Amino acid sequence: MKISDFIEEMGNAGVLGAGRVYRATNLLSEMIKDPELNIFLSVAGPMVPGGMRSIIVDLIKNGIIKVLITSGANLTHDLLESFGGSHYRNYGFDDEKLHDSGMGRIGDIYTKSEDFEIFENEINHILEKIASETEITSIQDFIYHVGTQITDENSIIKAAADNNVPIYAPGIIDSMLGLQLWMFNQSNKLGLDAVADMHQLSDIVFESDKVGVVILGGGLPKHYSLASNLLKGGVDAAIQITMDRSETGSLSGAPLEEAKSWAKAKAGSNLVTVVGDATVLFPLVLAGALDLVDSGENE
Amino acid sequence: MKISDFIEEMGNAGVLGAGRVYRATNLLSEMIKDPELNIFLSVAGPMVPGGMRSIIVDLIKNGIIKVLITSGANLTHDLLESFGGSHYRNYGFDDEKLHDSGMGRIGDIYTKSEDFEIFENEINHILEKIASETEITSIQDFIYHVGTQITDENSIIKAAADNNVPIYAPGIIDSMLGLQLWMFNQSNKLGLDAVADMHQLSDIVFESDKVGVVILGGGLPKHYSLASNLLKGGVDAAIQITMDRSETGSLSGAPLEEAKSWAKAKAGSNLVTVVGDATVLFPLVLAGALDLVDSGENE
Amino acid sequence: MKISDFIEEMGNAGVLGAGRVYRATNLLSEMIKDPELNIFLSVAGPMVPGGMRSIIVDLIKNGIIKVLITSGANLTHDLLESFGGSHYRNYGFDDEKLHDSGMGRIGDIYTKSEDFEIFENEINHILEKIASETEITSIQDFIYHVGTQITDENSIIKAAADNNVPIYAPGIIDSMLGLQLWMFNQSNKLGLDAVADMHQLSDIVFESDKVGVVILGGGLPKHYSLASNLLKGGVDAAIQITMDRSETGSLSGAPLEEAKSWAKAKAGSNLVTVVGDATVLFPLVLAGALDLVDSGENE
Amino acid sequence: MKISDFIEEMGNAGVLGAGRVYRATNLLSEMIKDPELNIFLSVAGPMVPGGMRSIIVDLIKNGIIKVLITSGANLTHDLLESFGGSHYRNYGFDDEKLHDSGMGRIGDIYTKSEDFEIFENEINHILEKIASETEITSIQDFIYHVGTQITDENSIIKAAADNNVPIYAPGIIDSMLGLQLWMFNQSNKLGLDAVADMHQLSDIVFESDKVGVVILGGGLPKHYSLASNLLKGGVDAAIQITMDRSETGSLSGAPLEEAKSWAKAKAGSNLVTVVGDATVLFPLVLAGALDLVDSGENE
Repeated sequence: MKISDFIEEMGNAGVLGAGRVYRATNLLSEMIKDPELNIFLSVAGPMVPGGMRSIIVDLIKNGIIKVLITSGANLTHDLLESFGGSHYRNYGFDDEKLHDSGMGRIGDIYTKSEDFEIFENEINHILEKIASETEITSIQDFIYHVGTQITDENSIIKAAADNNVPIYAPGIIDSMLGLQLWMFNQSNKLGLDAVADMHQLSDIVFESDKVGVVILGGGLPKHYSLASNLLKGGVDAAIQITMDRSETGSLSGAPLEEAKSWAKAKAGSNLVTVVGDATVLFPLVLAGALDLVDSGENE
Repeated sequence: MKISDFIEEMGNAGVLGAGRVYRATNLLSEMIKDPELNIFLSVAGPMVPGGMRSIIVDLIKNGIIKVLITSGANLTHDLLESFGGSHYRNYGFDDEKLHDSGMGRIGDIYTKSEDFEIFENEINHILEKIASETEITSIQDFIYHVGTQITDENSIIKAAADNNVPIYAPGIIDSMLGLQLWMFNQSNKLGLDAVADMHQLSDIVFESDKVGVVILGGGLPKHYSLASNLLKGGVDAAIQITMDRSETGSLSGAPLEEAKSWAKAKAGSNLVTVVGDATVLFPLVLAGALDLVDSGENE
Repeated sequence: MKISDFIEEMGNAGVLGAGRVYRATNLLSEMIKDPELNIFLSVAGPMVPGGMRSIIVDLIKNGIIKVLITSGANLTHDLLESFGGSHYRNYGFDDEKLHDSGMGRIGDIYTKSEDFEIFENEINHILEKIASETEITSIQDFIYHVGTQITDENSIIKAAADNNVPIYAPGIIDSMLGLQLWMFNQSNKLGLDAVADMHQLSDIVFESDKVGVVILGGGLPKHYSLASNLLKGGVDAAIQITMDRSETGSLSGAPLEEAKSWAKAKAGSNLVTVVGDATVLFPLVLAGALDLVDSGENE
Repeated sequence: MKISDFIEEMGNAGVLGAGRVYRATNLLSEMIKDPELNIFLSVAGPMVPGGMRSIIVDLIKNGIIKVLITSGANLTHDLLESFGGSHYRNYGFDDEKLHDSGMGRIGDIYTKSEDFEIFENEINHILEKIASETEITSIQDFIYHVGTQITDENSIIKAAADNNVPIYAPGIIDSMLGLQLWMFNQSNKLGLDAVADMHQLSDIVFESDKVGVVILGGGLPKHYSLASNLLKGGVDAAIQITMDRSETGSLSGAPLEEAKSWAKAKAGSNLVTVVGDATVLFPLVLAGALDLVDSGENE
């Protein structure tokens, strides 16, 4: 069976999760086909360790997303793989034993401390090079310069640098990458101005005829991607895939509609929230949308 | 993109929800291909109103499932459609207004009272016919006899009757169908012995070399499908797709592993729990498994 | 700090979970104080193994609840304790090992097979006694007669029999108690008419000026308690405490408002859904409501 | 009933949510009584709009917490109230209408744009004063200086400044406070170095004999509070109250045990995760712990 036929069946059901997946797929295909609309991708949670690295690289390389907003952790894990490290499976759930074996756990994903040691060496060489050659002006500018030093063609950070897709990571300091940056700063000067990113990002927002955001998980990236559109009256379209609940009031689980009250989404904007695991549902929605774009079906 | 390629990508990720979907798909294809294994399908939640009716009918007609365990509500909604009724969309969420307009709501699914009126008439004719012609011996026997009176080729109940797939609905009385049965019994005699089903179902279990269960949602059907295998040491394989949490201790959200402690699943049995919306994930897992069966890939 | 002061603080916050707990507490106190309103308590999930047995017994003995609707499992575990068995803690999560040690697991609660052996012996003596002395007319009638044979003052089933609180367990057959009943029926005759309960329960509904339901968990008991009020236009008030989500459309997680569309709750009825673990939140809401009733504060 | 008696009942149940609340309460009382242990409080989600402001102020004033880690949003809402604004209830859920009436929605909590206008004026006066008088060295230093300008005795930021409790808000820029900071920087110079906070926070960690963290919600504050203890081998104790799920792999829903694999929690550290709404469960656990501390019961 083809994904596009499957999505069509979801549309025939049209309700509950099936209806949400169908509507998200159609909205994403419309967002991709609209030449006036710039797509921001917001990525929280362990999406790189969770296997979505190549999907994000493709979205950058084929020009589908114009901006990436993510966590320092996803950038760290992208670099970990670029430097030859990997993510592992099936090492059990005894966290004290894992620690003794030099493994870190993220759900059912495992990392090895030897990969982090290589990461530390490599990133420190890069930090030294950047510090000696450039004056860093913002977090985005820092990530860009890291990207210029990466040779791995499968790297999100490199692909973004190569394709002029800015990466924003407002919480970068809270990650292994941030930790290295802090330790590097003990004896060097490579401070990151937390305010400076906003200038450039708001320029992108104002230069966009329309903005659509695709939000995987919640967290800081979700709020940042919506709030950056506040001064222009909000986004024109948004898709959110999350397992977080709405009842606690946290933004991560908030229905997208709530953004309309804050002018983070425009009145009349097309908003679809899908409840579920983004590692399954985003590849599904994306594959369906790309099938639709290729076939020109829902033009 | 083909579903089988998509599932393969899920396997490459191999972790979090993607890994669970991949493992469930492989397990289901193995269950389907194993000539010694009988598949029981357990269906709770609004799966018929949610658009899964034709999928279940196909599973019965093509011989994939040997037993169906479900709620009285799903049987009611199957009959509602067989009698010409339907399920509707997009009538809003003001439940008092919906009531005044003669509509019942299930999430974002709507029913019309006029369809239920037809349902009542039709089911009463059938009840009268059954009561005059047969002595009902169990709930399963009752559902079977209803099935023989249905002409709609898209009906689960008819397909089950035609193909000798017994339907168990231990909570049948707690549904619109049960309500009609109760009202019919005010002036007639068509009592249903709640104990009698167990005789036949345990015979099926003992005659099966192996049993695998596919559990959509939780509820009474989940427990019934697992517990019916208790006397034989438990099921040999199981897949569960649910959004319920494990922390409250309720069986609906319990991890399948827990069934091993009760001998409802055998030691060493292959068990996969997928967290998410069954109206999306079961069609996905099933389509992937059928692709695998057709291609003979994971033999 | 007193619970009533704590609930008052929840009311000062007034929003999110705090607001829900406050409103549920006030509604429950109003339900208890209203002499025209009969309270039905619906109990799904492992509430007896989860430590709520004595709370339910007290609610029966002090006349607060008029009807109890629950699962066969909770009745089984009530009997298990009445026959000298217990629920255990801290035996780990390796289900195959647990099985080998004769333990069954429910989340972090454990049972011992030796307790179930005693349960089987004892319940069989009771079944023999009942079968020889009475003709059972319904599931409720069966549970009542079991209750008359229990000597344990802490038993829910005994307290209910002593205080004329009918217990409905429409899915009783799907439990260890049901299993014993089925095996007993292999050589005896003690069939349970699944339809008969509805006659008596609907009489109770029609004789009640008003009905309020308190719903712990979802499942068959939730639907049964609401649906039994359908013919009279729905309940007058309801409180639900559950961790289930609404997005899958299953009744267990459905917001109580949805019941209005089906005339299972009256237009204008007071309905409060609290999201969380009932083993914490129901004792909290109940203690707060009893404080309010004692002090006459919210009259 | 007293909270301490209630918590004792939770301990008698000892399992499921009741057991978790009991264990969290005991652990928190031990943490409070341990003179060698410094408590870090991590607060994500709308805890200030959700009514927890005075609880947090009390924890600062009575010396229970040594460090507060939170979001820019909670700081914004603390200032909003200090400047005379408020949080409102019961304005419905039509977000386009809310926007037209100048209201922003957070679940069932509402804000008014006129309060935000006052906030903007007041914070700008403070920013001007700070920029003219001091050179800001870190985000924590900035928040401290804001605190010295606040006169409202109910303010978290003022209480923290008065009592030398540092507040860390690594994602501060992503909030209304951050937005004002950015706009102020268009024509002024008040940059915030995202790296500098780490120096001071790691000093606090190394000067503490032991660290215990209390984590409300997840998000950036959760990771930051745990990761800041990484270089010292992890925290000695932790309590987490969250509704997020573990299955997606995101840190917000991750079980605390996972932190042991990363040396963010020590082997053998006492860790309790409670699943539920922090606006109910944290006040409950805290009230119970304070009762225990006062009575000296679990010494």
